Amino acid sequence: MQRLYENLFYSKPVNELFEDESFIKHMLRFEAALAKAQAEQGLIPDAAAKLIGTCCRIENIRIELLIEQIALGGNVNIPFIKQLTQAVAIKDVEAAKYIHFGATSQDVMDTATVLQLRDALTMMANDLDLLIKQLIGIMNAHRNTMMIGRSFKQHARPITFGFKVAKWLDALLRSRKHIAGLLQNNLVLQLGGAVGTLSSMEDKGLKIAEAMGKILDLKVPAIPWHSQRDRFAEIATTLGILQGNIGKLAEDVNLLMQTEISEVSEPSLAGKGGSSSMPHKRNPVGCIAISANSKRMPALVSTMLNGLNGDHERATGHWHAEWETLATIVKLAAGSARQAVVITNGLEVDTNQMRINLELTKGLIYAENISLTLTKHIGKSKAEELVEKSCREAKQQGIHLKELIKKNPEVMKYLSPDNIEELFDPKNSIGLCNDFINRVLNLV
Amino acid sequence: MQRLYENLFYSKPVNELFEDESFIKHMLRFEAALAKAQAEQGLIPDAAAKLIGTCCRIENIRIELLIEQIALGGNVNIPFIKQLTQAVAIKDVEAAKYIHFGATSQDVMDTATVLQLRDALTMMANDLDLLIKQLIGIMNAHRNTMMIGRSFKQHARPITFGFKVAKWLDALLRSRKHIAGLLQNNLVLQLGGAVGTLSSMEDKGLKIAEAMGKILDLKVPAIPWHSQRDRFAEIATTLGILQGNIGKLAEDVNLLMQTEISEVSEPSLAGKGGSSSMPHKRNPVGCIAISANSKRMPALVSTMLNGLNGDHERATGHWHAEWETLATIVKLAAGSARQAVVITNGLEVDTNQMRINLELTKGLIYAENISLTLTKHIGKSKAEELVEKSCREAKQQGIHLKELIKKNPEVMKYLSPDNIEELFDPKNSIGLCNDFINRVLNLV
Amino acid sequence: MQRLYENLFYSKPVNELFEDESFIKHMLRFEAALAKAQAEQGLIPDAAAKLIGTCCRIENIRIELLIEQIALGGNVNIPFIKQLTQAVAIKDVEAAKYIHFGATSQDVMDTATVLQLRDALTMMANDLDLLIKQLIGIMNAHRNTMMIGRSFKQHARPITFGFKVAKWLDALLRSRKHIAGLLQNNLVLQLGGAVGTLSSMEDKGLKIAEAMGKILDLKVPAIPWHSQRDRFAEIATTLGILQGNIGKLAEDVNLLMQTEISEVSEPSLAGKGGSSSMPHKRNPVGCIAISANSKRMPALVSTMLNGLNGDHERATGHWHAEWETLATIVKLAAGSARQAVVITNGLEVDTNQMRINLELTKGLIYAENISLTLTKHIGKSKAEELVEKSCREAKQQGIHLKELIKKNPEVMKYLSPDNIEELFDPKNSIGLCNDFINRVLNLV
Amino acid sequence: MQRLYENLFYSKPVNELFEDESFIKHMLRFEAALAKAQAEQGLIPDAAAKLIGTCCRIENIRIELLIEQIALGGNVNIPFIKQLTQAVAIKDVEAAKYIHFGATSQDVMDTATVLQLRDALTMMANDLDLLIKQLIGIMNAHRNTMMIGRSFKQHARPITFGFKVAKWLDALLRSRKHIAGLLQNNLVLQLGGAVGTLSSMEDKGLKIAEAMGKILDLKVPAIPWHSQRDRFAEIATTLGILQGNIGKLAEDVNLLMQTEISEVSEPSLAGKGGSSSMPHKRNPVGCIAISANSKRMPALVSTMLNGLNGDHERATGHWHAEWETLATIVKLAAGSARQAVVITNGLEVDTNQMRINLELTKGLIYAENISLTLTKHIGKSKAEELVEKSCREAKQQGIHLKELIKKNPEVMKYLSPDNIEELFDPKNSIGLCNDFINRVLNLV
Repeated sequence: MQRLYENLFYSKPVNELFEDESFIKHMLRFEAALAKAQAEQGLIPDAAAKLIGTCCRIENIRIELLIEQIALGGNVNIPFIKQLTQAVAIKDVEAAKYIHFGATSQDVMDTATVLQLRDALTMMANDLDLLIKQLIGIMNAHRNTMMIGRSFKQHARPITFGFKVAKWLDALLRSRKHIAGLLQNNLVLQLGGAVGTLSSMEDKGLKIAEAMGKILDLKVPAIPWHSQRDRFAEIATTLGILQGNIGKLAEDVNLLMQTEISEVSEPSLAGKGGSSSMPHKRNPVGCIAISANSKRMPALVSTMLNGLNGDHERATGHWHAEWETLATIVKLAAGSARQAVVITNGLEVDTNQMRINLELTKGLIYAENISLTLTKHIGKSKAEELVEKSCREAKQQGIHLKELIKKNPEVMKYLSPDNIEELFDPKNSIGLCNDFINRVLNLV
Repeated sequence: MQRLYENLFYSKPVNELFEDESFIKHMLRFEAALAKAQAEQGLIPDAAAKLIGTCCRIENIRIELLIEQIALGGNVNIPFIKQLTQAVAIKDVEAAKYIHFGATSQDVMDTATVLQLRDALTMMANDLDLLIKQLIGIMNAHRNTMMIGRSFKQHARPITFGFKVAKWLDALLRSRKHIAGLLQNNLVLQLGGAVGTLSSMEDKGLKIAEAMGKILDLKVPAIPWHSQRDRFAEIATTLGILQGNIGKLAEDVNLLMQTEISEVSEPSLAGKGGSSSMPHKRNPVGCIAISANSKRMPALVSTMLNGLNGDHERATGHWHAEWETLATIVKLAAGSARQAVVITNGLEVDTNQMRINLELTKGLIYAENISLTLTKHIGKSKAEELVEKSCREAKQQGIHLKELIKKNPEVMKYLSPDNIEELFDPKNSIGLCNDFINRVLNLV
Repeated sequence: MQRLYENLFYSKPVNELFEDESFIKHMLRFEAALAKAQAEQGLIPDAAAKLIGTCCRIENIRIELLIEQIALGGNVNIPFIKQLTQAVAIKDVEAAKYIHFGATSQDVMDTATVLQLRDALTMMANDLDLLIKQLIGIMNAHRNTMMIGRSFKQHARPITFGFKVAKWLDALLRSRKHIAGLLQNNLVLQLGGAVGTLSSMEDKGLKIAEAMGKILDLKVPAIPWHSQRDRFAEIATTLGILQGNIGKLAEDVNLLMQTEISEVSEPSLAGKGGSSSMPHKRNPVGCIAISANSKRMPALVSTMLNGLNGDHERATGHWHAEWETLATIVKLAAGSARQAVVITNGLEVDTNQMRINLELTKGLIYAENISLTLTKHIGKSKAEELVEKSCREAKQQGIHLKELIKKNPEVMKYLSPDNIEELFDPKNSIGLCNDFINRVLNLV
Repeated sequence: MQRLYENLFYSKPVNELFEDESFIKHMLRFEAALAKAQAEQGLIPDAAAKLIGTCCRIENIRIELLIEQIALGGNVNIPFIKQLTQAVAIKDVEAAKYIHFGATSQDVMDTATVLQLRDALTMMANDLDLLIKQLIGIMNAHRNTMMIGRSFKQHARPITFGFKVAKWLDALLRSRKHIAGLLQNNLVLQLGGAVGTLSSMEDKGLKIAEAMGKILDLKVPAIPWHSQRDRFAEIATTLGILQGNIGKLAEDVNLLMQTEISEVSEPSLAGKGGSSSMPHKRNPVGCIAISANSKRMPALVSTMLNGLNGDHERATGHWHAEWETLATIVKLAAGSARQAVVITNGLEVDTNQMRINLELTKGLIYAENISLTLTKHIGKSKAEELVEKSCREAKQQGIHLKELIKKNPEVMKYLSPDNIEELFDPKNSIGLCNDFINRVLNLV
C-alpha cells in the first residue's frame, strides 16, 4: 500500500477512479455490454448474455487472486475472465463459454481505461472551470494593482497583477479547450479481437461495436487501435501542457511568496504551511505540490510517446508501459488542478508590498519614460544620452532617479515637476494591460 | 560544423530552413515590418521606417560577429540590433534609434521562429500528403494480400497487408489533421515589449501588432505569450506523436524485413543498403533512420514541456532551452516523414513469402475456426475440447492440424473435406479487414 | 489501492519494502536513534530519550491520519511528529518536546529513504548474483551452439549462443559492480536541521551524527545534502543502466522467440503464457514485463536528474518529486532483475532451429570465407570479384552458394570439396567467440 | 550551418572537438592503426599497411561527399571507406583492398567517438579543476559571511555564504571523481568485425586489438560492445549529474541576483548583461545559459538510456540515436562547466545586503534561540509557549522580536540585554558551518 501522498500531489476523488476496483468494474461493464450486444445481433444465445450480464458484478471478482495470477498471462484480463467464467459456470457451464466472446484482452482493458479517463477528465474539467472562474475574479479585482514586471527575475517595467493573471488565464483557456477536445474525440471504444479484424464475430462485428458504443456511450472508431496509441498519447501530451500551464502559475506564486518579495501568498488555513520552530515561515505547500508534479510530468509524457512504435497488431511491452504511466499522468494533472483551485481561492495579494517593491530600483525602471518624452524635444540620441548619464549617477549616489532628473536644468526646460511625477507613476507605465485583459476575457 | 547526418535523420530542405542565415533573415523581416507598422501609426518617422526597411538585408549582418558576441547579452538579438543599427546609422544616426522600437529580444526571436515553423510545417505537410497518397495506393493494392497478424511478435490470426497499412494510415490521418490545426492556430505574432505591455508604443501597440500581422500574414494573439509557451509545446507534442505514428510504420517494416520473415522490404536503390562482405544483406536504412529519430523524439518533447513553468514576464533559461530543442524536433519529424515517403515509394511486398509464413504453425492459427464451427453442432464445450486435443497432437507429432482434423471421425460427421479446407483458408479468417479499410478511406 | 501489477512489473518482496508502513517504521528508527544519540551527548535528558525510544513503535502511528493531514505541511513528517508527540506526551509532556529535536523533516525522510534503499538494493543484488550465475551456466553450456549473428535484424555472420550470453553477462557484471558501489558510497545519513547547520544541537551535532551512524549502520557524509541530490540521482542512473542491460537481454530473447525464428523461448510453466483460442502461442510474458519497464525507466531517471537544481538550502518541489519517482525506479529495476532470473532459469534453447536458421541464406553468409581463402591464391581483387559473381548467381537461381562454388572451375583449381565444406561450416566462422567468453569469465 | 549558440550554451574548444572534420580525423587514426597492427601480426601485407597509413589524411576525404552519400548505407563509414579506398587505389589497387580489413563500420565509428570523448572529458576536467579551485577560494573568503538560509524560498535560519559554497563544492567533487573514473574505465577500443567475433582476422584478432590499443592508448575490453552501450550511457548519466550539480549552483546564484535579494551577482564585464532601456538590469547571462542546459540535459540522458536495449549483435537505430545525442550531452556539460568558471571568477558578493536581508523578518528567525535558552530556566513547554506568543505579537505589531523580548519581564529574570543581543546575532546561529567547510576541504 502506497497512499501517503494521495492528498498532496493528487486529487483524492480522481485517485479513486483509478483504484483497482474501479478498473475491474469498468471491465465488467465492458463484458456485460459485449454480451448484450452480441445477443442482440444473434451471435450468442440471449440467455447466455443475460446470465453474463447478471454475473458482471464486482462481488464475483477476487482482486487478490488477479494480483497473484497476473504474471501467468501478462495482463489482468486473463485471470479476470477465468474468475468471471467460474461465476457464470456455476449457473450454466455452456453460457460461460460466451464470456468475452471473440474479444481480446486489450479490447476490454483499453475500453475500461477509456471509461476511467472519461470520468477523470470530466472531473478535472470541472476543477478547471472553477479555477478559470476564480482567476477571472482575481484578474478583474486587480486590474489596477500595480506591480513590477520581471525578466530573468530582475525588475524590468511595471505591469498590473491583473495582467499577470490574464496571462495565466489565457494559457489555461487553451488547455481547457483541448480537454474538451479530448472528451469529444479521443475516448473511443476498443473492439477488434485477437488481431483487430473481429474475425470471430462472423460479419456482425461492426454492428456489435455500434451497439456497445450505444450502451457505453462511446464512439466507434474507424478501425481498432490496439497498436495505434496516438489517441492516448494525445491525452498525455494535452495534460502535460496543462500541467505546464498550472506549473507556471505556481512558479510565479512561489517566487512572489519569497520572504524578500512577499507580494502574494497562498491562502492561510489553520495549521497549514506553518513551522513551529520558524514562526515567520509560511510554506507554499500548494506550490510545492504543483512544482513537484511539474518536475515529474514531462518525463511521464515522454514515456507515452516512447510507446507509440508498437510492433505489429499487438505490441510487446508498449501497451503495458502505458498502464501505470497514463494513470499517473491523469492523477498528477488532476492533483495540480485541484491545488491550483485551492491556491487561487483566497490568494492573498499584498498590494502595498507591490508598491514598495516597485520603488526598489529608485526610479530606474522609469528611465525609458524620460527618454521617450525628451525625444520629442531634443531628439532621440540626446535624450538617451542624458538619461543614461542620470541613471549612472543615480546608481552611484544611491539616490532616486526622479530627484536627479528634477534637478537637471536641461530637462526642466521642457518638463514641469508634475510632468516628471507623472513619468514616475507606475500607472502611466503599464501600457495595454487592461486592453490585454479585455482581449483574454473575450476568449472565455 | 556538424552536418554529417543531415541527409540521414533529416530532410535537407527543412534543415535549410533552420540555418542561422534563415533565422536572421526572418528577424530582419520582423524589424522591417515593425518599423513599417509603427510609421503607419505615426509612432516613428516615416523616413526612419523606410530607411530601416531598406537596411533590413542579410548583407548588413555579419553572422560570425553575432556568434562571437552572443554571450554578452545572452541572445542573438542584442548583437543583431547592434549591427543593424550600425548599418542604418551610417546613413542616418537618428533613424537608427528607431530600430526595434519598443520591442524586446523575445518579440523578434519568437516571431522569427514562428516564421521558420510555418515554412517547415508546410513543407512537412506536403510530405505527409505524399505519404498518405502512397499508403492509400499500397492499401488498395493489398486488400486481398493475406498475411499473418502478430501479437507479442507471435503468430496470432490472419490479416491482410492492406489492413495493416490501413492502421498506419488511420493514425497518420489524425496527425495530418493536427498539423493543419497547428498551422491554423499556433503560429501567432509575438509583440509585447519588455514585459508584454507594449508600454513604449503609446496607445498604438495593438494597431501596430495588427498591421504587422498583415505584413507577415500572422494572427495577433489575445495577449503576448513570452512566458506562456504552450503553443510551441503543442507543436512539439504534435510532432512527437507524428514521429511515433511514422515510427510504428518503420517498426513494422523493419520487423517484416528480418531475414527469417522477409515479407516486406524497403525499395532497393542502386548502392543502397548493401554490404560487400555480406552479399545477402539488405540494410533497412530508412527504418534505421526513423527508428533512431523515434528514440530521440520523446525526450526532446519532454524538454519543451519542462520549459512551460517559466518565471514571471520573461523566463530564465526556459525560453533559451527551446531554441535548439524545438528546431531539432521539427527537423527530426520532417526527416522521418521524408524517409517514410522514400520507404513507401516502391515498398517491396513479397506476397508469396507472406503465404508461406502463414503456414508456419501448420494450421494451428485456424484452430478457433474449427471450434466455432463445431460449436453449432456439438456445443461450445465439446468443440473446444476436441480442438484443443487435436492441437496438442498436431504439435507433438509435427503435422498439420488440417490433416489431423480431417481424420477425426467426430468432426467428419458434420464437416466435409471441402468445409475443412475452407476453414483453413486465410481468406475466410480475415474478418472485417476490408470494411475497416473502407472506413479509414472515408476519413481521407 | 493500486496493486494489480505488483507481480508483473515488480518484485513483490522489494515492493513491500516501499509500502507506507515500512517507510514509517524507518522514520521511527531514525527518531529513536536521534534521541538516543542526543541523550548520549547530553543534549536531551536520558529519560526523555528512553521514553521516546520506547514509543517509536508503529502501533503509535495512524497512517490514515498521516494521509489525511499531509497537505497541511506538505510532507509526512509534520503529522508524523504530531502523532509521535501525542504518544509520548500521554506519558510525559516534557519528554515529548524532545522528539525530533533540532532535526528537520528532510533529515528523517531522507534517512528513512536511505534505509529503504539499502534493503532494496541488497535484495536486488542477490537477484543479480543469481542471474549472473544462471547466465554463466547457459554461456558455458552453449559455447559450441552455433547460431546466426544479426545486424539490423538481418543475418550477418555466425556466432555462438554462448557468445551472445557473454555479452549480456559482460554488461551485467559492470552493473553489479556499480550497485556494490552504491551500497558502499551513496547511502549516507542525513542530519542537518532546518538549513543544514545543526545549529540547534549546540556544538554536538557531529558527534550525534556519528553516534546515529553507528546505530543505523550508515556513514556520515562530509556535509548535509538536503539540496545536493546527486547521490540519489546516481542510484537512479545506475539502476537505469541496469534496466537497460536487462532490457537488452529481454529484447534478444523476445526477438528470438518470434514464431519465424523460434530459437529461444522463455521457460514454460503450467498455465503461463498460453492462449486458449490461439494454441500455438507462447507469450513472452517475462520479456513483455521487462520491455515495459525499459520503456518507463529512462524517463523516470530523467526526472531525478531534473530535480538536481534545487533552490537554496531546502528546495521547492525538487525533493518532493523524488519520493515516488525513486521508489518506482528501484521497484521497476528489482522487478526486471526478478523477471530476468525467471526467464534464464530454464531458458529453452532450440539448437536445432538455430542450425536451420543458419542455412536460410543458402550459404551467402559464408561468402567472405571463400574470398579470404581465394585471396591467397588469386589475389584479393579477383577473389572478391569471383565470389560476388557467384553470390549474385546463387541469389538469382535460388540455389545454395556452396553448390555453385563447387562447380566453379577456377575455385576448384585451388580448393578441394572438403576444403569448401569447411568454409561453409559455421564452426569455422565463429572467430574468437570462445576467447571472448573466457575473457568475460575472468571478470567474474 | 547552425552555430549561433556555440558561445552561449557551449564551450567553443569542446565544440570544435565534435566538428565533422575532427571526427573524420579520428576515423582515419583508427584505420591507420588497424592496418599497422594487422601488418605487425602478418594479417595484411606490410606495404599495404604503410600505404594505407600514408593515405589516412584528411585531405583525402571530401566531407561534402560523405554528407551526400550517407543515406545509402546508413552511416558515414561506408562512403568514408569508399573515398579512402580510392585514395589508396590510385597508388596500389591491391593494397586498397586491405583498408578496414575485417572491421565493421561500428568499430571505427565507436572508436573515433571514444577518442573524441577522451579529448572532451579531459578538457572538461580541466575546467572543473579550475571551478573547484575558484570555489575553494570563495568558500574560504566567506567563512564568516552571514546570510539567511532558505527553505522553500522562505527565510529559515542563518548560514554563512562559505557553507553554501561548500555544499556546491561537495557535490562537484563527487562529479569530478566520477569523471576521472570515466576516463579510466569507460573509454575502450571497439574492434569486433561484423558480429563482434573478429572472425575475419584468423586467430590474430586479440593481438591486433592489443596492438591497436597501444597505438591509440586505449584499453581493450573483455569483449566487443557493439550492442552493450552501458559504458556510453554511463558517460551520459555522469555528465547529467554534473550538469545538475552545476545547475544547482546557477539556480542559487540566479535566485540571489533577484532585484529584491541582490546578495550575489555574476561578475560584471564591459557590455555584458546590460540593457539600454532598462539601466538597472544586470542579466544573469551565465545562469541563463546553465539553466537552459539543465532543462535540456535530463531528457538527452534519457535518450541514451532508451537506446540500451539494442537488438542482437548490431542494433537498429539504437546506436544511431546516440551519435548526436551523446555529442550534445558532452557539449552542454562542457559549456556549463565553462560558464560556471566564468561566473565564479569574480563573483560579486554583497555581504552588506546579506546582513540587511537577515533582518527582514525582524528577528523571527532567531525565535528558536530564545526558546532553547529559556528551556534551561523554565522548561521546554513554557519556553516555547512564551516565544510563540512573542512572535505572534511581533508580527502583529510589526516590531522587532528582540525589542519585545527585551521588554518581557519573565525573560529578563534569566537573561541580560547582552544575552539577548547575543541570541539575535547571526554568528551565534550558524551552527557547524565552519566544521562542515573543513570536512569538505578534506575531500579535495
